[in-house]
Amino acid sequence: MIIMGIDPGFAITGFGIVKYEGNKFSVLDYGAVTTEASMKLSQRLLVLNNRLEELIQKYKPDAVAIEELFFNKNIKTALTVGHGRGVAVLAAARSGVDIFEYTPLQVKQSVAGYGRAEKAQIQQMVKALLNLKVIPKPDDVADALAVAICHGNSHRMGAILGNKAY
Amino acid sequence: MIIMGIDPGFAITGFGIVKYEGNKFSVLDYGAVTTEASMKLSQRLLVLNNRLEELIQKYKPDAVAIEELFFNKNIKTALTVGHGRGVAVLAAARSGVDIFEYTPLQVKQSVAGYGRAEKAQIQQMVKALLNLKVIPKPDDVADALAVAICHGNSHRMGAILGNKAY
Repeated sequence: MIIMGIDPGFAITGFGIVKYEGNKFSVLDYGAVTTEASMKLSQRLLVLNNRLEELIQKYKPDAVAIEELFFNKNIKTALTVGHGRGVAVLAAARSGVDIFEYTPLQVKQSVAGYGRAEKAQIQQMVKALLNLKVIPKPDDVADALAVAICHGNSHRMGAILGNKAY
Repeated sequence: MIIMGIDPGFAITGFGIVKYEGNKFSVLDYGAVTTEASMKLSQRLLVLNNRLEELIQKYKPDAVAIEELFFNKNIKTALTVGHGRGVAVLAAARSGVDIFEYTPLQVKQSVAGYGRAEKAQIQQMVKALLNLKVIPKPDDVADALAVAICHGNSHRMGAILGNKAY
C-alpha cells in the first residue's frame, strides 16, 4: 500500500510518501510545501492545496495519515495553522483518499517504540526504516515520514480500526 | 457590484450575498452552511467547500469579504475554526475572487457607526439596510451580511486600499 504522511502547518507543510509492502517500507517521495510570508493568505492556501492535490494525483496513495496538532499557548498560531491543516485535509477529501489521524504520542510509540522518544531518535528511526542516507530536512519532512510509517505499522498490527478515520 | 460576506466557522459558516449599486444594498441570498458533529471532519470540510464554491459559481461575486477571527481563550476551538476558515478562504481563492478581511471592530464601525455597537444593534442595522422583514437567523447569517455591507461601505468610501486584500 502507498501511504502519504502529512505534517500539517501553515508556512511549511511536510509530506512523505512511502510504499509499505511485505512489512517493509520504501520511500517514494518527500519534501515540504513552503510559502513566503510576503504572499497573500489566500494564495498561500491555494499553493498548498494545489501541491498536495498534485502529489495525491501522482502517487495515488491508499491512505493519507496526518498528525493531530496540540498547542498549549499561542491561540493566533493555532488559528493560522488550523487554516493550513484544514486545507490539507480538504485536499485529501476532495481526492477521495481515506484520511487517518495520529497523535504525536502514537507516532512516537509506533516509530521509536515508546512515547517519550526524543525528536532526534524519531529522525534516526525514520532514516533507518526507510534506508535513507541522511535525515530529511526540515524537521517537518521527517515528521511527515514518521506519521506515514505509523500508519503502516498500525495497519500491520490490525489496530487500524482503533484509529479515527475521519 | 456583488459582494459575498462570510462569517467563518466550523459547524456553522454564515454567508450573505448582497448587491451594492447606487449606494444602495439589496440582498440576493443568505444562509448558513451547517454540518453535523457526527460527520467526519474531512466530510464536513468537503461539504463547506462545495457549498461555498456552488454559491460563488451561482452569484459570481466581485468580492468576498470575510471576518477576521479573534479568540481569547480556547486554543482547541481556534484550531478547529481555523480549519473551516482556511477552507472558506480557499474556496474563494480557487474561484479567483478577490478576498478582503475585516475585523469585528471595522464591521461594527461600518454598519452601526461605532465600534462598540451591541450585536442586537448590528442586527437591526442589517435588517434596515437590506430591507428585510426579520433579522436573519442564526447570528452567523446576520454577521455575514454585516461584513458584506462593511465591504460595500469601504468600497464607497474609497477606503478599500486600506484593507488587507489577501
